[in-house]
Amino acid sequence: MPPLSDIQQRIGHQFRNQELLERALTHKSYANENRVPAHNERLEFLGDAVLGLVISEYLMRTCPDSTEGDLSRLRAAVVSEPALASIAREIGLGSYLLLGKGEEQTGGRDKDSLLANTLEALIASIYLDAGTAAVETFVLF
Amino acid sequence: MPPLSDIQQRIGHQFRNQELLERALTHKSYANENRVPAHNERLEFLGDAVLGLVISEYLMRTCPDSTEGDLSRLRAAVVSEPALASIAREIGLGSYLLLGKGEEQTGGRDKDSLLANTLEALIASIYLDAGTAAVETFVLF
Repeated sequence: MPPLSDIQQRIGHQFRNQELLERALTHKSYANENRVPAHNERLEFLGDAVLGLVISEYLMRTCPDSTEGDLSRLRAAVVSEPALASIAREIGLGSYLLLGKGEEQTGGRDKDSLLANTLEALIASIYLDAGTAAVETFVLF
Repeated sequence: MPPLSDIQQRIGHQFRNQELLERALTHKSYANENRVPAHNERLEFLGDAVLGLVISEYLMRTCPDSTEGDLSRLRAAVVSEPALASIAREIGLGSYLLLGKGEEQTGGRDKDSLLANTLEALIASIYLDAGTAAVETFVLF
């Protein structure tokens, strides 16, 4: 795994609390195998909501004439699994993931669902570390 | 319609920008009939995301041992249409709604979908008026 300083450079956020970053990158399968108490599933839950709000505010600002239906369709496209997996691949998120052996053997490191979920967990960890503004910087720029 | 001061007392938030409250209470059908430019549909879109984040953070805090699956199910129940419509009825939201004649005649003032959407719009208007903390005060207390 490349050093964690690399991923922080790539996403433009230096974590005050490195544990948050480590938790975001720890898949449940790794935590189970290695008896690590924390993994990223609950962060994924929070990240989904954080991302939803950041994208909604962005769309409200940038699409002043769009209807609620159009905004909803746009948001759904932006936060879709393939879109999130694509961003995750761009920042090389898979290579920083702590995965269990089973997931590793079945190609988990490049699965859309796993990458999208990890990106959501990463977004939650940035939010908990530094608030909405830091997430906006990462997601929108 | 009762005075708008009443609904502000009921929800525990005094709007700095009263226009936000008025927009949240203006249904598209009323805006169309009366050539009012602003209605609450786009606010509904934003409110859905604001509510999602506020509830997610609350569940993360109060359910430290719940899995991501449990948290997702809980969140879905809390933000479901019947749950939101029930809160809307508790605060008497229907009586403050500006509705078009067609919606009025078909009982729109007491429709679950319409009440839930208006509550989401109200949540967005509180958020735009005073931020997340004000929404938390309204939603969680």
